[in-house]
Formats: sequence, C-alpha cells, structure tokens
Amino acid sequence: MTNQAVDQSIEKALASFKELDEKITHLSSIAALIGWDQKVIAPKKGRSTFANASGTLSTEIFKLSVSSEMGGLLDILSTPEAAAQLDDISKAQVREHKENYDRSKKIPTDLYKEYAVLTAQANDVWEAARANNDFGSYQPFLEKIVEFKRKVAEIYGYEKHPYDALLNEFEPGLTVEKLDPLFAKLRESSVALLKRIQASPNQPLVSIFEQNYNVEKQREFNKYILPIIGFDTEGGRLDETAHPFAQTINTGDVRLTTRYLEDNVRSAIFGTIHEAGHGIYEQNIDEKYEGTVLQSGSSFGVHESQSRFLENMVARSESFWKYFYTTLQTYFPEQLNAVKLEDFYRAVNAVEPSLIRVEADELTYNLHIMVRYEIEKALIGGEIEVKDLPEVWNKKMEDYLGITPETDSVGVLQDIHWSFGGFGYFPSYSLGNLYAAQILNKIQQDLPDFYETIEKGEFGKIQGWLKDKIHQHGKFLTPNELIVNATGEELNAQYLVDYLEEKYSKVYGL
Amino acid sequence: MTNQAVDQSIEKALASFKELDEKITHLSSIAALIGWDQKVIAPKKGRSTFANASGTLSTEIFKLSVSSEMGGLLDILSTPEAAAQLDDISKAQVREHKENYDRSKKIPTDLYKEYAVLTAQANDVWEAARANNDFGSYQPFLEKIVEFKRKVAEIYGYEKHPYDALLNEFEPGLTVEKLDPLFAKLRESSVALLKRIQASPNQPLVSIFEQNYNVEKQREFNKYILPIIGFDTEGGRLDETAHPFAQTINTGDVRLTTRYLEDNVRSAIFGTIHEAGHGIYEQNIDEKYEGTVLQSGSSFGVHESQSRFLENMVARSESFWKYFYTTLQTYFPEQLNAVKLEDFYRAVNAVEPSLIRVEADELTYNLHIMVRYEIEKALIGGEIEVKDLPEVWNKKMEDYLGITPETDSVGVLQDIHWSFGGFGYFPSYSLGNLYAAQILNKIQQDLPDFYETIEKGEFGKIQGWLKDKIHQHGKFLTPNELIVNATGEELNAQYLVDYLEEKYSKVYGL
Repeated sequence: MTNQAVDQSIEKALASFKELDEKITHLSSIAALIGWDQKVIAPKKGRSTFANASGTLSTEIFKLSVSSEMGGLLDILSTPEAAAQLDDISKAQVREHKENYDRSKKIPTDLYKEYAVLTAQANDVWEAARANNDFGSYQPFLEKIVEFKRKVAEIYGYEKHPYDALLNEFEPGLTVEKLDPLFAKLRESSVALLKRIQASPNQPLVSIFEQNYNVEKQREFNKYILPIIGFDTEGGRLDETAHPFAQTINTGDVRLTTRYLEDNVRSAIFGTIHEAGHGIYEQNIDEKYEGTVLQSGSSFGVHESQSRFLENMVARSESFWKYFYTTLQTYFPEQLNAVKLEDFYRAVNAVEPSLIRVEADELTYNLHIMVRYEIEKALIGGEIEVKDLPEVWNKKMEDYLGITPETDSVGVLQDIHWSFGGFGYFPSYSLGNLYAAQILNKIQQDLPDFYETIEKGEFGKIQGWLKDKIHQHGKFLTPNELIVNATGEELNAQYLVDYLEEKYSKVYGL
Repeated sequence: MTNQAVDQSIEKALASFKELDEKITHLSSIAALIGWDQKVIAPKKGRSTFANASGTLSTEIFKLSVSSEMGGLLDILSTPEAAAQLDDISKAQVREHKENYDRSKKIPTDLYKEYAVLTAQANDVWEAARANNDFGSYQPFLEKIVEFKRKVAEIYGYEKHPYDALLNEFEPGLTVEKLDPLFAKLRESSVALLKRIQASPNQPLVSIFEQNYNVEKQREFNKYILPIIGFDTEGGRLDETAHPFAQTINTGDVRLTTRYLEDNVRSAIFGTIHEAGHGIYEQNIDEKYEGTVLQSGSSFGVHESQSRFLENMVARSESFWKYFYTTLQTYFPEQLNAVKLEDFYRAVNAVEPSLIRVEADELTYNLHIMVRYEIEKALIGGEIEVKDLPEVWNKKMEDYLGITPETDSVGVLQDIHWSFGGFGYFPSYSLGNLYAAQILNKIQQDLPDFYETIEKGEFGKIQGWLKDKIHQHGKFLTPNELIVNATGEELNAQYLVDYLEEKYSKVYGL
C-alpha cells in the first residue's frame, strides 16, 4: 500500500471506530439511566421483568465492545502508522477501548459464563452468611472466586505481583510496588495518631448528633447546601435510597441520592456532600467528550478523591461550618442552639474506631482499607487461603484499630465486594484520600485564600480550580497523568499524613 | 423438501423469530422508560444530549424490526404450511410484525428520510403559527405532509377509500365505509341533543369547580381514589406533567401522570381517572404476552375505550359520586359543603360547547372529532386542499357546535397531530366512546348490580369483567375480534347515542 492508501484506511477506520464508540456510549448512557430508575423509583412489581430487558441491553453493549468489528478497527488504529496520525483525543479513545477489548477477549467464554453464575450465587450466599454469622457456608464460594481471580491475574498478565493485574482494572497503571510504600506510610502514621487521639483528654461530644432531627428539615437543609457548594441543581437531581450513590446520565443530568436518618443528622449531610463531589466532577467534564468513552472520570481512585475532598477537606473544615452552622441552627434550634460552633466542628471530626467500614471516620477509614488491601494482596499472591480469613481479619483489626469483631458478620463478612469478585476495588477508597490531600496542598498554593472563600460560602474559585485541573479532562488523562498535571508530582502519601496530623492535633489538642 | 424438513425449518424459524421479537420488545420497553423519564423527571439541561442516545436506541429498534433477518423469518412463517403449524399466539405475533414490516418496507428510504425532516420542521412551524395566528406560514408544510400522506395511502394500498390505508395504522381493519354511518349517526344525534340541552332551563352550576382548591389536597385525593378504582399502585406510579399521559414499562410498572390546577378541581380528578383507565388495561394484560409484541393494547380506539369508560361511564355516574362525594367534601369543606350531591353530579356532566377539543365535555368532544375526521377524509381523498382548511373548519364548527373560532389559533391550528403526520389518529377518540358505551350496555347485562357496586366503592367485579373480556387479551385479538368477543356484536353506534340521550335527559331534565 502507498502511504496515502494507509492514511485513507486509517481515516476510514477512525470514522467507523468513532461511530461505534458513540453507539456504545449512547447505549451505556441509557443503561445508566435505567439502572438508576430501577434502583430509585421503579415500582417493585415490575423490576424482575424489567431486569430481562436490562439484560438484553447490557448484552448488546458487551457484544458491541468485543465485536469483531471493534477488534478489526482497534488493530488498524493501534499501529505505529495510526499513532503518528491520530490526534490525542482519538488516541485516548482507542486506548480505553483497547484495554477493555483485550481484557474481555482474554477470558475464555466458558470460564466467564461459569464465573457469572458463580458470583450470582455467591452474592445470595454471602447475604445469608452475613445474616447468620456463618463464614463456613460462604467459604467454598469465595474459594472458587479467589481461584478464578488468580487465574484471571495470570491471563491478564503482570510484571511483578499478580494483584497488579486486578488493581489495574480500577486504577490503570497502579502496582503493588507503588502502592505498598504509600499505604505503609499512611498505615503506620495513622495507627500512631489514633493512639494519641484515644489518649487525649479532649474528646469531642458526638452525642449532639444523636438527637431527633426532623427528616423534612434535613431534606430542606441538604437541598439548600447543594447548589452553594457547586452542584448544578438544574443539571441533576437529589433523591433518596438506602445506599446513597451518584449516577451520571450525561454532563447535563447527574443524579445523586442520599439517606435521611431521624436520629443522625450527620449521615445525610456528609453523605450528600460526598455524592455531590462525585457529581460535580461529572458535571464539569468537557462537552467535547460527550458521546465518547472519555465522558467519565479518570479512575475509581480519582473519582473518590473528588467526593472525599468535598466531604472531608472542605465540609469537615472549620471554615465550612463558620459559614453554614448558623443556618443549620435555624433549621434545628432546639438541638443545636446550645452547641458552640467549635464543639460542632470538633464533633464532625470525631474519631471513633468501629468495626464497620462504611461507618468509619476520616482517620480510621484508611485502616479499614489497609486490612482489606493486605488480605486481597496476600490472597491473590497465594500467601494465605480463604479459610484463614476470619483469623487474619480479626488480627489486623486488633493491630490497626485496636478492636476485635465478636462475630464474622461484623468482621470479614461485612462487605459485598468479594462476593461479586471486586478484588482490587478497595484500595480506590484510600487512594481517593491520598489524591485529595495532595490536591488540597496544591490548591492552597494556587488559592491562598482557600479557607477564606469557604468561610464566605464562595465555592466558585475552588470549583473553578478543580474543573480546570481535574474535572474537565474526563477520562482523557490517565490517573497518573492527571495528578502530575494538577499537582506537579506523582502520588505522595506525605500530604495525607501531614493533613491528618494537623487536623487532629487541632481537634484533639494534641 | 419432505414434510418433516419443512416442519423443522418452520420450528427453527419460529424460535429465531421469537428471540427477535423478545429483543425488540425488551428494547422497546427500555425506550418507553427513557421516554417517560425525559418527559417527567429528567433535568432539562441533559435532555438534548440524551435525545441523541434515545435516537440511537430508536434506530436500533427500527433496524431490527425491518431487518433482512425479520423479513426472511416472516416469509417462512407466513406460508400456509406455517399457518397450519403455528399456535394462535405465534400467529398473532407474526401478524403484528408482518403488518409493521410490510408497511415500513413499502416506503422508499429516501422518501421516508425526506418526510422525517419535513415533520421535524413542520412541528416547529406549527408551534409558531399557532402562537402568531398565522395559518399561512404553516400551509406550505402541511401541504407537503398531506401530499406525502396521499402518496403513502397509494403505496400502502386500499380497497375503496385512500383514507382507509391511514385509518388502518391506528385501528386495524377500520374503513371509511364502516366508519361513515357510525359517525353520521353519532353526529346527527349529538347535534340535535346539544340544541335541546342548550335550550334547557335546568343548567348545572359549573362555577363550583372554579374556586380555590389546594393542590396538596388534590394530590392526596387523587392518590386516595386510584387504588380504589382498580389501579394497582404497587405496580405503577402517579407523577405530574403539563400534558397528562400513561406509559407502560411492563405489566408490573405502569406510570400515569396528571396535572393539578389550583382553580379547577375537575381537571386532575377526571384526568387521573382517564389515565388510570389506560393504565389498568395494561396492568391486566396476561403475563404470557410479556416480552412479546402482544404485550400492549389492541388498538388506539380500544385503549381509549378503557380510559373513557372509567372516566365517563364510571366516574361521571351519579353512583360514583354517591360513594366519593362525602370524602371529597372532607378534603374541601369550604368549597363543597354547601353543594348538594345532585348539583355536583350535574356539574361534572355539564355540557358547554367550546372551541378547544381538549377542554370539551363528553358530548361535544365527539363533534370536535367529527370536524377533524371529515376534514382528514376529504383532504386525503383530494376533495379539499390545505388552503381551504380554515374556512372548512370554521363552517363545520358552526354547523356542529354552533360556535365559530375568532382566530385560527383556537381553530384549525389548535392540534399538534397533523404537524407530525398523524392523519387517521383522531377517529380513535370517538371510537373509544363508541366502544365504551357498547361495553357499558353489555357489562350491565352481565353484572345487573353494576351501579350498586360502584355506589359501594367496590370495583372488583367491574374490573374483573373488563380484565376477562378486554384487558387480558393484549394485542392477541384484533379490535373487531375483541369487541365481538366481549359484547357479541360488531361496533354499533346506537349504544352511545342511547347512553348520551339517557344521561343528558337526566342531567338537564329534558
């Protein structure tokens, strides 16, 4: 072929590829919407029937993304000739589809089907096992899942540690080698800090949250803060579900959910703000990525950094409550008029080691993740076996948090993740905290009046910075590119360590 | 081929056909859900982007239903050999897809694309023309649409009148020859009855509705009546939109909307009940049709019969208000405590000729339809041209309703239907009334205590009869089969004529 003929065939392939990408993206956007609908508002009676329809759509999307058409186009568009000719956005689109295509194609169909059946069963078994505190009944299923995941790691391939192959699905480019020192540093400093906090005589009064807080008033307060902190309420919704989440349909339609507890005013406020962090990210992705695979966040970890940044670095700051506390008091005068701002601020930052991850505070949360990370790594690496889990779990909880679960239900059985094979997922949560603290450090250099603007209830400059450095780029930049681009260096655990030290020194007068 | 080989190939084709039907039905159910979402709850900002995603799905559904695969399967399954072998349900599935396939295939792709662009433009032009009372700007677009529709009628083919080809899309099997005498009888008797009503000294007091009715209380009342009249609220929802409608996702998920007007308590009540009539129909379709093309109503006219039956024959009866009126009074004591039941009943049945179809009462509504039916028939038949419409419209309004629009905005320009080419649609509304009256006659023979049960607020027997005779059959029976099956005879206008005569004699003391 002449060079011109090559160019033409690349150009033609690119046009077909973009059309296919758009079709997959459109159908995925529909899948997102119907998923939201069935979780949030669909009447129960129709859900099992609709699940068949949803299944048909998911199958269609999967088929398109691993079709021979996709394979052929990726072959053409991954050549050095193509690389020389494609613009950066096209290259990123090819990168994303190629990763997905290669991964999916590597797993033999039979093995995948077997696994789908296994995880469907395992989910039910896990639910029952947790309810009955019966790890034994779950063990054989989890063994098969781990066996499958070990196989998958071999099939995907890795350089140094098999767990890398799984980490990579959630945080492209991340490895045990990179993560180990980051997490070790965070774990050691957190365990030490926790001990000092527990020894402090200045304990905040968390009982102020455990009064009766009218749900309708909570609803109003949550709806009041959302647009102020930067969530575009005209391009989204806030609904209610037992398990809060954020779901993007497109950049003009981002849906959050929260949960109101009459006896816990904290839960909804920080839950809503957390989901808003995810939502604002998606609302601010550049429109030029609309209708492409790049119209979403860079990775699970980066996404979590945006929810944690808003929830913890912003909304658990004293400045935040200097602005919002008097309003909260007007909503709940009986409950809060006698509580001073400083006491309220200290209470929202209280540290209390607990058995359950999803109820953990900002400091101990990471220790819950360390327990899971170390177990997953050792399981996939073959250093421990499923039968050892309850013992290993309890030992680590004691070592890091100083408490031991009395039952497996509130121990090793508490999370759903393993039952669907989500190995490699947990680290994202702490990565989010690490990214967030590094971003906090950088944003304060760029916006020296960072806390002053929060204190005035002005979030425009902060959200502008986040949009510019993080949000707008969607999936165009990889997580590592993004954090280097935004902060000037690769992920560095020192920022989170320093942030936690500083915050808790203040809160607990250490 | 041997007989056995034929049988096998039919069996194989049938399996593939059913799979394809299920896929189309599943994707259509998803299209229904996302259509509902975008109309009812999606934030405005995301809608135009999402329209692209919706478009991708619609295109996919259309492609499947006219695919060469579908064509080939229908060829095999439409042979006499196949007919002898298929069960009745399979035959009905083939019938529905074949009609749709043949119709779609007959229109050349270029012509169809041209038409899609034309109607998209025409819709905007119509909106502006109505706002500006400017028929002239709409005329050239409507002329092209009529020209297209005349062409389509020729392409589809017909025996006697070209309009038959269009009627058939909405009411399979219906012709001008059948419809003309039915509508003539209804029109003549309605015009005469209207004159007698207008001459009556016993006019009901409709001003009772035009007080201030708190919207929240209206909401409660509407939600209160829904389950009582037979709508399964666990298998559906009631939301609010400017233009009320019913949308089925599946038989376990049927969504209604209504509209609350502070100064008009009637509007929501009868609007909700009307949509509930549509909804109950869909909730009661036999589960065996789930996931097939037969999981919907028999025709537009039959669907409308169920909404009209519940709205007019049931909810505008004196018995209905004997049960519900005291409750309504407890919701609105200030407005209604001084109004006697009889006066309320007479007021909900007030007849007031008005210019706008969607605001018309039970009697004059049909006259609005006659105006449109006669115009459509003459337009498609080439007896009148688009330029004549304003004059013809106003003349007919004067002849049938005794009032003449002062502007085209409240005359010939009021309806959206022609701008999207919906010729043949309007008759469905009056067909609904005709079917409903015939059903009322029969149901009273089968359930002599029909009104007594309504008076007690017991709707189980009535809904049971409707389910048995109408609802459960879905699209399995054609409209004509269904009405003969339910009432023992073909559509007969005398029932509606008698019903109207009897009702208004009572209401107006004629």
